[in-house]
Amino acid sequence: MSFLGKNYLIANKAGVKLFDKVKDLPIVDPHNHANVAEIADNNNYDNPWHLFASTDHYVWEVLRKRAVPEKYITGNATPEEKWMKMAEVFPDIAGNPVYEWIHLDLRRYLGIDDILGPDTGKQIWDKASKVLAREDKKPQALLKEIGVEVMCSTDDPLDMLEDHKRIKEMTDEFTIRPTWRPDKAMNIFSKNWADYIDALETRFDTLINSVGELMQVLRISHDYFHECGCRASDHGVARPYSGIASEKDANDAFKTARSGVLLTAKQTDSFMSYLLGEMAELNAEKDWAFQLHCGPVRDVRKFLFDTIGPDAGGDISDHNIDIVTPLIPFLNRFDNRLKVVLYCLEPTHTSTLATISRAFGAKVNLGSAWWLCDTPIGMKRQLEYICSVDLFANFAGMVSDSRKLLSYGSRFEMFRRILCDVVGNMVERGQIPEKIAENLVTKMCYNNPKELFGI
Amino acid sequence: MSFLGKNYLIANKAGVKLFDKVKDLPIVDPHNHANVAEIADNNNYDNPWHLFASTDHYVWEVLRKRAVPEKYITGNATPEEKWMKMAEVFPDIAGNPVYEWIHLDLRRYLGIDDILGPDTGKQIWDKASKVLAREDKKPQALLKEIGVEVMCSTDDPLDMLEDHKRIKEMTDEFTIRPTWRPDKAMNIFSKNWADYIDALETRFDTLINSVGELMQVLRISHDYFHECGCRASDHGVARPYSGIASEKDANDAFKTARSGVLLTAKQTDSFMSYLLGEMAELNAEKDWAFQLHCGPVRDVRKFLFDTIGPDAGGDISDHNIDIVTPLIPFLNRFDNRLKVVLYCLEPTHTSTLATISRAFGAKVNLGSAWWLCDTPIGMKRQLEYICSVDLFANFAGMVSDSRKLLSYGSRFEMFRRILCDVVGNMVERGQIPEKIAENLVTKMCYNNPKELFGI
Amino acid sequence: MSFLGKNYLIANKAGVKLFDKVKDLPIVDPHNHANVAEIADNNNYDNPWHLFASTDHYVWEVLRKRAVPEKYITGNATPEEKWMKMAEVFPDIAGNPVYEWIHLDLRRYLGIDDILGPDTGKQIWDKASKVLAREDKKPQALLKEIGVEVMCSTDDPLDMLEDHKRIKEMTDEFTIRPTWRPDKAMNIFSKNWADYIDALETRFDTLINSVGELMQVLRISHDYFHECGCRASDHGVARPYSGIASEKDANDAFKTARSGVLLTAKQTDSFMSYLLGEMAELNAEKDWAFQLHCGPVRDVRKFLFDTIGPDAGGDISDHNIDIVTPLIPFLNRFDNRLKVVLYCLEPTHTSTLATISRAFGAKVNLGSAWWLCDTPIGMKRQLEYICSVDLFANFAGMVSDSRKLLSYGSRFEMFRRILCDVVGNMVERGQIPEKIAENLVTKMCYNNPKELFGI
Repeated sequence: MSFLGKNYLIANKAGVKLFDKVKDLPIVDPHNHANVAEIADNNNYDNPWHLFASTDHYVWEVLRKRAVPEKYITGNATPEEKWMKMAEVFPDIAGNPVYEWIHLDLRRYLGIDDILGPDTGKQIWDKASKVLAREDKKPQALLKEIGVEVMCSTDDPLDMLEDHKRIKEMTDEFTIRPTWRPDKAMNIFSKNWADYIDALETRFDTLINSVGELMQVLRISHDYFHECGCRASDHGVARPYSGIASEKDANDAFKTARSGVLLTAKQTDSFMSYLLGEMAELNAEKDWAFQLHCGPVRDVRKFLFDTIGPDAGGDISDHNIDIVTPLIPFLNRFDNRLKVVLYCLEPTHTSTLATISRAFGAKVNLGSAWWLCDTPIGMKRQLEYICSVDLFANFAGMVSDSRKLLSYGSRFEMFRRILCDVVGNMVERGQIPEKIAENLVTKMCYNNPKELFGI
Repeated sequence: MSFLGKNYLIANKAGVKLFDKVKDLPIVDPHNHANVAEIADNNNYDNPWHLFASTDHYVWEVLRKRAVPEKYITGNATPEEKWMKMAEVFPDIAGNPVYEWIHLDLRRYLGIDDILGPDTGKQIWDKASKVLAREDKKPQALLKEIGVEVMCSTDDPLDMLEDHKRIKEMTDEFTIRPTWRPDKAMNIFSKNWADYIDALETRFDTLINSVGELMQVLRISHDYFHECGCRASDHGVARPYSGIASEKDANDAFKTARSGVLLTAKQTDSFMSYLLGEMAELNAEKDWAFQLHCGPVRDVRKFLFDTIGPDAGGDISDHNIDIVTPLIPFLNRFDNRLKVVLYCLEPTHTSTLATISRAFGAKVNLGSAWWLCDTPIGMKRQLEYICSVDLFANFAGMVSDSRKLLSYGSRFEMFRRILCDVVGNMVERGQIPEKIAENLVTKMCYNNPKELFGI
Repeated sequence: MSFLGKNYLIANKAGVKLFDKVKDLPIVDPHNHANVAEIADNNNYDNPWHLFASTDHYVWEVLRKRAVPEKYITGNATPEEKWMKMAEVFPDIAGNPVYEWIHLDLRRYLGIDDILGPDTGKQIWDKASKVLAREDKKPQALLKEIGVEVMCSTDDPLDMLEDHKRIKEMTDEFTIRPTWRPDKAMNIFSKNWADYIDALETRFDTLINSVGELMQVLRISHDYFHECGCRASDHGVARPYSGIASEKDANDAFKTARSGVLLTAKQTDSFMSYLLGEMAELNAEKDWAFQLHCGPVRDVRKFLFDTIGPDAGGDISDHNIDIVTPLIPFLNRFDNRLKVVLYCLEPTHTSTLATISRAFGAKVNLGSAWWLCDTPIGMKRQLEYICSVDLFANFAGMVSDSRKLLSYGSRFEMFRRILCDVVGNMVERGQIPEKIAENLVTKMCYNNPKELFGI
């Protein structure tokens, strides 16, 4: 079969037919890290490196694995030098989804079918540069070409969402909604937390002297986000929190931290647990979806963190964390009144999370395979398994989780193909009638996430 | 391929041939939760809901996922109203094995080929009601139709096993043996434990003032079960116990609990560990199989437990439990003198359990994929893996673990098909000669469980 | 398809083509437990049991599972009696890789195509005995026939490596390099540790009164091994160590243990962590590869350990260990300056290890699926997954890890077929261009391990 060809990732006839039904459905992407300002500015991309790799730590990590010096990744080499270094090692990337994504992006949206390697790097650079200079390859045109109907960026409670407003005024071809992501307010252990509370004081023009007052400004922000079209929050934590902690304990922790004293693990936990619980209450009131991204151990590679900082790579997953103890009380507190989406980072957590979703009824949903699992094999194994314990019909749908605009196309194509392969295989094994399968994949790709996220 | 058709679940030719060898073998089901009284009474089922869903918490859980109100699941709606609600959401269940089981039951034993959905719910209800009113669809006739040769129910040590005796006198077309399940005696942490000890005192007409006296009545019960044809015990625990604890510590815990004082975790552990060890000694004496069901975290959804009670759903698995520390001393204590069957609930425990089975020789056996894993993908992944570390020939065989009579058919059909698919695939890949594979699957489906359980 | 036939283990056409490219590449086996003296002596094997089973605890474990008495495994029955007992139960072994390995060995190197069973046991014994008596089936001739170019045995720092030298003088048809394996020096918790330190004193003719002096003799040994062609160390540990401990704490532990006093867990940890760190420094200086085999829980079956001793079976894997906490500081300490190979024993650790390898750049590599995972399904699942997070191009390559000479053939054949099946499947799904895949598998089978290990 040809590389990225018609039946890419689909190994059965029923799957091919299913994909035909869903491939042109509009993209609904309830969680990504879109550069909203870039989309609002709507300038042409400077060069192929900018679009393809400058914001993509998936690319960075695989280049590092091939011993590309940091100068050519996040350093001060020129974009073309970086591109050529990437081209040099690109054949060694084969088998990793980065290899597929980059080639998908080149083929689907730039019309370039060449295979990236040391011999083709320059010609692809030249071709891509030419294409990217065209009017119809500006960010907004690309989003339209990709077929984005609605997507949700990830935004800090401080954000005034001006870029979202600019886009709303410019176009109705697609919608970009914000997502409320209050991690910085919750991460009391971080050395940046104190500054962040200061920033909240400035933004909301008030003093924040207690956890109650902190929740007050967060509620104002939450309300503001709602007015601006936000319908979900997102929470990134190394492990779940129970949401069961007293305001008094949380406030003691707050005051201790504000006074500059280091917290005990117990105090940290009280504060974070309390805050997560109170923020979930805000969501429950407005029927927002509550997205929980739990599991990543961030910034473990000291060399990277010290030289480049966070979100640069050096993140891992850990099979050995306790999900059940904190997550069960949280879900019991909000049972039947909060829409929850649980994302899974680590394949060994899939089964536990699936049984938890199963146990907690209609409002608890599994999200798509995340980050280190958001690959053909990761998605395939997840989808095959979770339907057997939970329901396909309750799956929260694909999200790109990406910082890169073209990902809204290539990642959704990959997901839809894998989904159709998995469901098609079940059709061919006599597990699902064909007609039922058609409705199922259509809903999973389009209707269900729209309904669940209210977007 | 057609839904539930000839090659349902089997994707290779060798597997199809293998299935032809095993599909008509009698059913041997060494572990289920049969309603023995119902079988002894042998009355027609009142209605389709009664037979298909009234006792099946797998069905309940998926209906809850589709937001069916509890009134239509375990509540006071009429059976037909419940059936129609189920029909309404049934297309959304596709992909989950409940979808396959219900349709298998309708097709194989009621002769109804319709696909259940809102449009067909009523007609299936009517057809099924008519079929179930027939003489040849009473419980005993159904068991014969299914091909059950021998099955083992799950029974409390208090049980007089009268229903088993009634059936024995009524028919020799199939055998229903009891299984000794002393969890209530062991669960000293439970608020019902004290009442249970009282009940033992009444049943055995004696005072129970020490753990030694408790073991004496349990031994009487064990002997009685043996006379009644029992050849196995079954133990459900959230985690394994070492079986290494002194009688003195266990007795202290017993006395403390009897005096109404709450036990420490250490005391609870001493008692449970001691009791499990002593009960295993009883099995070793009589060469009974010792079935260990470890892993489930029960009743985590407070809403369900508070409103409906136990065994209603709301159970999960947890990847993050320690199996090795307690299980190794237990297996060493009974090495070479106790037949052990280890059931696996959680896919992340499969590999550890398989290496433990491998390490402890001929008498330690892996049981079939259990509960949340007892699905096409769960069984497939388990079987593919465990043969590579342990041996197919030592596999303890399929058990239905079901509360629903038709499951003795549909669950065994599903298992046999998956087994033939897995082994057939190995034949096609040149890993097993065809003749050897035929013998292997025949033994796994029939001879091995009969021999292992002595039934 | 025929048993062990042309397309054994390969289920797709692209894979068959790929295997054609790699099947005749020389064998590079950077880690095994070769009996170097046997190869240097180069005598004919006494009998088939000697070659096929006498050193292979994989075989022993499956015979035990079929209730073969220990007399016929490691006991004093004659080799022919043992062989016949093995033949008797061999059909029951089908599905386990031992079944494939033994038959591969018979077919590929002895020219015997019979299927081993009770009816064929004697005729295979006779045929095999005849073949093994031939000049061209002596160890060195067999290694040549297998196609071994270079292999690395596993050797104690005490070893004078005389056998390696003898072989070097006898032949240049293949190279056997030593590997430095200092576990006995590090395992301060072992009851044999004190004797081992005494042996080091004797071998190096010096007193060892401190951890510093211990490191001095280990450095001398390390240097000596380097002169003798060693380019890697190997470390077997139940769990990783951080390599972060003070010399003072390590020395206190050393002195306490030398005085015969039992260490606390903390002292043990300090010593082992310190030593592992210092030994890794030696590797970093000489650019040796540092192989970490972590995870096995050894000798858990008391009956085996008490009657036969270590390395006799009774070893398990444990899903429930913490890899991240100790391994991350270790890798940070040696970041960018130590070639590390991480072997995975337990499938539930695969994902964590893969993300760790991904995070730490070019010098950290995943090794082949190990021991209880070194099976068709274990290798397949590992390879499918790790490329999605890490890179195929960074995979450290296959190692046989075997005590049995024929394994250098059969285990590599198995690996290469599985690799080609996995990569071929990705080609057929359009994930990798065919030409790129050819280069990839060639490098993974030959060039990459040679380069990584510098051999």
